[in-house]
Amino acid sequence: MSSRNIRVEALDQIPLEQQQIELVERKGIGHPDSLADGIAESVSQALCKAYMEECGAYLHHNSDQGEIVAGESQPKYGGGSIIKPIYVLLDGRATKEFEGITFPTDAIAIEAARKYLGSTLGELNLERDLIVDCRLGVGSTDLRDVFRPCDSKLPRANDTSFGVGHAAFSETENIVKGVSDYIDGDLRKKYPMIGRDVKVMGLRQKDEITLTIGCAMVDRYCAGLSEYIEMKEILNEAVLKVAKTYTSRSIKIQINTADDIERGSVYLTVTGTSAEMGDDGSVGRGNRCNGLITPNRPMSMEATSGKNPINHIGKIYNLLSTQIARECVKKVDGIQEIYIRLLSQIGMPIDHPLVASAQVLPACGADFTSISRDIEGIIDEQLADVTCVTEKVIRGELNTF
Amino acid sequence: MSSRNIRVEALDQIPLEQQQIELVERKGIGHPDSLADGIAESVSQALCKAYMEECGAYLHHNSDQGEIVAGESQPKYGGGSIIKPIYVLLDGRATKEFEGITFPTDAIAIEAARKYLGSTLGELNLERDLIVDCRLGVGSTDLRDVFRPCDSKLPRANDTSFGVGHAAFSETENIVKGVSDYIDGDLRKKYPMIGRDVKVMGLRQKDEITLTIGCAMVDRYCAGLSEYIEMKEILNEAVLKVAKTYTSRSIKIQINTADDIERGSVYLTVTGTSAEMGDDGSVGRGNRCNGLITPNRPMSMEATSGKNPINHIGKIYNLLSTQIARECVKKVDGIQEIYIRLLSQIGMPIDHPLVASAQVLPACGADFTSISRDIEGIIDEQLADVTCVTEKVIRGELNTF
Amino acid sequence: MSSRNIRVEALDQIPLEQQQIELVERKGIGHPDSLADGIAESVSQALCKAYMEECGAYLHHNSDQGEIVAGESQPKYGGGSIIKPIYVLLDGRATKEFEGITFPTDAIAIEAARKYLGSTLGELNLERDLIVDCRLGVGSTDLRDVFRPCDSKLPRANDTSFGVGHAAFSETENIVKGVSDYIDGDLRKKYPMIGRDVKVMGLRQKDEITLTIGCAMVDRYCAGLSEYIEMKEILNEAVLKVAKTYTSRSIKIQINTADDIERGSVYLTVTGTSAEMGDDGSVGRGNRCNGLITPNRPMSMEATSGKNPINHIGKIYNLLSTQIARECVKKVDGIQEIYIRLLSQIGMPIDHPLVASAQVLPACGADFTSISRDIEGIIDEQLADVTCVTEKVIRGELNTF
Amino acid sequence: MSSRNIRVEALDQIPLEQQQIELVERKGIGHPDSLADGIAESVSQALCKAYMEECGAYLHHNSDQGEIVAGESQPKYGGGSIIKPIYVLLDGRATKEFEGITFPTDAIAIEAARKYLGSTLGELNLERDLIVDCRLGVGSTDLRDVFRPCDSKLPRANDTSFGVGHAAFSETENIVKGVSDYIDGDLRKKYPMIGRDVKVMGLRQKDEITLTIGCAMVDRYCAGLSEYIEMKEILNEAVLKVAKTYTSRSIKIQINTADDIERGSVYLTVTGTSAEMGDDGSVGRGNRCNGLITPNRPMSMEATSGKNPINHIGKIYNLLSTQIARECVKKVDGIQEIYIRLLSQIGMPIDHPLVASAQVLPACGADFTSISRDIEGIIDEQLADVTCVTEKVIRGELNTF
Repeated sequence: MSSRNIRVEALDQIPLEQQQIELVERKGIGHPDSLADGIAESVSQALCKAYMEECGAYLHHNSDQGEIVAGESQPKYGGGSIIKPIYVLLDGRATKEFEGITFPTDAIAIEAARKYLGSTLGELNLERDLIVDCRLGVGSTDLRDVFRPCDSKLPRANDTSFGVGHAAFSETENIVKGVSDYIDGDLRKKYPMIGRDVKVMGLRQKDEITLTIGCAMVDRYCAGLSEYIEMKEILNEAVLKVAKTYTSRSIKIQINTADDIERGSVYLTVTGTSAEMGDDGSVGRGNRCNGLITPNRPMSMEATSGKNPINHIGKIYNLLSTQIARECVKKVDGIQEIYIRLLSQIGMPIDHPLVASAQVLPACGADFTSISRDIEGIIDEQLADVTCVTEKVIRGELNTF
Repeated sequence: MSSRNIRVEALDQIPLEQQQIELVERKGIGHPDSLADGIAESVSQALCKAYMEECGAYLHHNSDQGEIVAGESQPKYGGGSIIKPIYVLLDGRATKEFEGITFPTDAIAIEAARKYLGSTLGELNLERDLIVDCRLGVGSTDLRDVFRPCDSKLPRANDTSFGVGHAAFSETENIVKGVSDYIDGDLRKKYPMIGRDVKVMGLRQKDEITLTIGCAMVDRYCAGLSEYIEMKEILNEAVLKVAKTYTSRSIKIQINTADDIERGSVYLTVTGTSAEMGDDGSVGRGNRCNGLITPNRPMSMEATSGKNPINHIGKIYNLLSTQIARECVKKVDGIQEIYIRLLSQIGMPIDHPLVASAQVLPACGADFTSISRDIEGIIDEQLADVTCVTEKVIRGELNTF
Repeated sequence: MSSRNIRVEALDQIPLEQQQIELVERKGIGHPDSLADGIAESVSQALCKAYMEECGAYLHHNSDQGEIVAGESQPKYGGGSIIKPIYVLLDGRATKEFEGITFPTDAIAIEAARKYLGSTLGELNLERDLIVDCRLGVGSTDLRDVFRPCDSKLPRANDTSFGVGHAAFSETENIVKGVSDYIDGDLRKKYPMIGRDVKVMGLRQKDEITLTIGCAMVDRYCAGLSEYIEMKEILNEAVLKVAKTYTSRSIKIQINTADDIERGSVYLTVTGTSAEMGDDGSVGRGNRCNGLITPNRPMSMEATSGKNPINHIGKIYNLLSTQIARECVKKVDGIQEIYIRLLSQIGMPIDHPLVASAQVLPACGADFTSISRDIEGIIDEQLADVTCVTEKVIRGELNTF
Repeated sequence: MSSRNIRVEALDQIPLEQQQIELVERKGIGHPDSLADGIAESVSQALCKAYMEECGAYLHHNSDQGEIVAGESQPKYGGGSIIKPIYVLLDGRATKEFEGITFPTDAIAIEAARKYLGSTLGELNLERDLIVDCRLGVGSTDLRDVFRPCDSKLPRANDTSFGVGHAAFSETENIVKGVSDYIDGDLRKKYPMIGRDVKVMGLRQKDEITLTIGCAMVDRYCAGLSEYIEMKEILNEAVLKVAKTYTSRSIKIQINTADDIERGSVYLTVTGTSAEMGDDGSVGRGNRCNGLITPNRPMSMEATSGKNPINHIGKIYNLLSTQIARECVKKVDGIQEIYIRLLSQIGMPIDHPLVASAQVLPACGADFTSISRDIEGIIDEQLADVTCVTEKVIRGELNTF
């Protein structure tokens, strides 16, 4: 039997899918908050790489801070210009010295941030329309927290904290995530006018789902108002088609509802993000690590992006509990909804949480005892393998927002 | 009958109080995230006051952004010093010109932030240990959004968004909030060694409640290690006493668990906040507007602090739904738990949400029909009176974190 | 005989007083460049004090850097307001650690800068209209450069560099300095409308002297245009009276020549400095250490303000050569003009310059041999006493701009 | 006869070449002060280009401000790294709106600064080791100051100010400039180890000239200490050879005098500038517009770099007077030294200075009357053609530092 404190309890509640109202949101990769998250995470990855290269170990840091201060722009059909650059402040802290080695943490952070923005916002002129400033503080690495992948020793939890995850996604959750992925993965390649800052909000009222989409259009790929309108229609149709693959409920799509077509006031941008014209962004205020904001589900307020992936519970347990929840649904029959909560105790090895709790809403007629045993096994296994999460994060294989 | 779309549904689930595990957290007023929230909110209040004085109306702004970059300190028994000042970046946006009047928004923001920090962190030397920088952007006030209190016209929702609130508090919630309030309201006056940055985490496992308290001690009021230890004991005892007034469950208190008394490594600070020595803070990442972080309850990710209180749903509906939930529990018998969700539709008057949803867990034997009717009445009434929230916020009568 | 390399040579040239054209300028204490100088110098003094208090020695630092970025203002008769705060960047470098002691150099610098601005610009609201930022770098104190006043050991020159000074002042120089001092010392007390940013330019064409004065008026002390005009007349009269005490040449006064009285466009400010409305300032670009800018005289480009007063030749030798020149004129008869140049050699004791050169324009019929001997004596004496300059500077007894 | 007020007077003084002591300095293009100058000037040029392209006229701006805050580095034979990026603050002001056109002045400034640094410091990694921040203020363009090249109307002087220039260069001046140019133009191409930050100080004591050279060596091109020493020897030899072509006086060369070879403490850098490791820089504190700092000559304290080239006397008259002096020496026989001073009057056309003064030290036996007439002619001609200076500056054909 496992030495871990794992608890599985049955929930007796109305499944979300059957509740009257459900709300789901996803901020696209170009949304200011997502940009902040993406920068924070890429800074952390770059620090990890540098630490490993220079001293064979991952050292303490937390770059889960940072602010994107919006610029000003003058979009114009055919291509406008940025009037005031976007300002990015990097903060948080990182180990600057260890065993006699000095790490150029500010330089690493700046490079990572610029690179990330360059690859994420293809239309942003990095030489002109961007200021990346850095006020990264000094962190110190406690010797007990140095993490060497080959070591048998496990990192200790940095804090008494918790992570939470759930599965399976509801229809609305699947639609919002699916539509967003489809736009990013397929549609934009065909229609570069579609910017990176696409916000998808799904509201289900009983069996009616309304998708409200805010999509920043890129001016250089848009010759005029009629093209803009046409693009909205194409987007509408494409999104509807994708959404329908997930549900038989009725679906309504609303795109750029603040547009005033008659006055010619539309959602046109130079770079495809609202950060160019007034919307600031911060780390940790956008999507949770499953890619969604789901007020009908338990959520953690912790920013997953940018935290060190070695012993920061706010990162590891959020990622791991989401992964466990999905694994359970995949491997165990009879689960309608499952909520995983992992609670750490400061100073204890991260593979031994104070409590690993699973709340399960079983499907009709399911054998809870059997389900329970299987879930316990999966949790035990995944916890034993917790450093996998760390390594996947460093290699950029896990999304954090 | 009301013209509002109000839905009340019964929940059939295990009350939180009876679930096995519950987690509740509160970041004290001196926590870096709370400082960021407090600054953001005080900037918004100051802008409101200035707008009203200069042009008799509240104008568009959102100061729900900002970053606190930690300093460095050298605490010392009897009084140490700040080595590197705390840096505060104010961003967001505000209306700088309206009807020919120019508003010194940056100056207003800086003054508000400094004043807030001065009153909140009595031990911080504002002339020496603080940098307040400002990159507040230009917002524009749409004529339709100008809000004059005497007007009959209601502001329109700025976005399709929602707010969420719940009541009644569970025992653990009451304890966490109660302990925090007691420390702020009573204990610190007697023991100035207790800093403003007190983090209270409550974990309930069945009938055992563990309170983990991180309390920054102020060095100038602490002569040495033995006094520090004594202070922890006093705090322990006092907190235990308060906590017991809320519950008959068993309670365990843990204070500053990272202390290593033998090595003399303790949680000592110069100013009573961890922002002086490495912990950055951001708006919107701390307490929700009910003062708590409650991962077992539905939460909104929106920052309540700093948003304009006129038409920003992320602020108004969070505050209002919390207020409604409390009002319902207070006035209607038979409610065990109630969850209020207010969903706006961009452009519609804020007293007419798209849906106002109440989910109720009735007490045993309660008459749901009657409860339902009463709740509907309260919601209707409170929505009709929504601008009260705006006015209370501006007068600083509603907490946002 | 002295061990010092002192050279005195006679000049055979037309005395400046007899040349056709002479130009002299003084930027008042409230001019943006002077503000930058004053801040730089007060930061250096504050660092010196802190070093001495903490470790009984003066340590390495150079705060002769920094930038004042202008704000924006809306002056108004009776009192206007600052629209955008003045931003001050402090840079340079300072010793942050020495013999195990950590110095809060940023905090010291910020406090000194704010204090200086507070005392210099009485009308500036420090809590509202000012941002003081700090990017002071880390300097390291070479053990050989630690300066303890009681030590017999002399500091070594930090660089191969030089200082230059002259005496006696010409009539135009005396007038420009005299008028400026009179305004600062007497007139402003009576007429608070006169701001701190008064620029006096003296142009002598043969025997006609034109004084062009740019005087920022403070709006809160000025009820309207007629008062403004009246103030200019009073200023004109007062300045003329003072100027006449220095010369029998004809004098013309021009005040705020860019005023367009008909359009009501005048030089009105909220705080008495042009830094509030568009004029940036930098250390070292204003007055030389004799208080003047004198393109007809040899000048050093080195910023005197903010440099460390222990071994920085750019500071010490500029101050000392000016002092020597004045001393020579005071004590030795028969000197019409004298120019002192002190040239250091890096690493040599500062009382032993590579060359101390005096160029003398003797009065008619003067005995150059005798003059020469006396000058040599004074130079030798003053060099022997060079650390006096250091101490006077630290005590704030020597002006640097 | 000319309508201009041109005065030529003879000087009766000891030629500089015959005075006992002469001091000349040049800060190389990679010196922090020169970097600041170069950035300021490139920003001005970029603004001019943008204004001309967008509205066919040059508009008001002054970018003669800015600060380079040094980074930190860890140089290492074979290639070290930058630990803390160099921070560049751009300030000054520029016209952001004109005739309905908005100019992205911040973006233009940032791009120009980055481009300039990229081309000047080939070894600086712009993506990693550099922060370019911008706080450029809003300037307004007075309609009367809009300058259209085809216009017959001449710009009016922005201020009562002056410019000063001299010719011919003394031997020491020629050597210092010549050596510096030789290193930049020839030697570095052969020896990339020689950084851009080469400071040349020439001291002439009677007939002995000492050249003290501070040369930042680039670590990636230097395998070890012996190569470093060898490089110094090569540099010594090469410089000596060049210097000798200008003089028959004795010459002594000193390179990197602060080196302590035994301890291995040498002037090694990662990027070839001391800005990477502690030396800050400011606009206007380095070379005058003739490329030198010459305390034995009259100098202007005005920063030439970055000022608008249309009507800013501090720029135009410094450049023009230097050009006139050189022209006179080239075209008129019998001039030993000539000093040109151009004095403007605010509001008057820039081709009509209040006074254009020439002070001439004639060669032995020269006919002053004839010389005088020729000089007057040249001055008149050059003033008539003053807008040429503007156009050359914009095209980058005139050096400003």
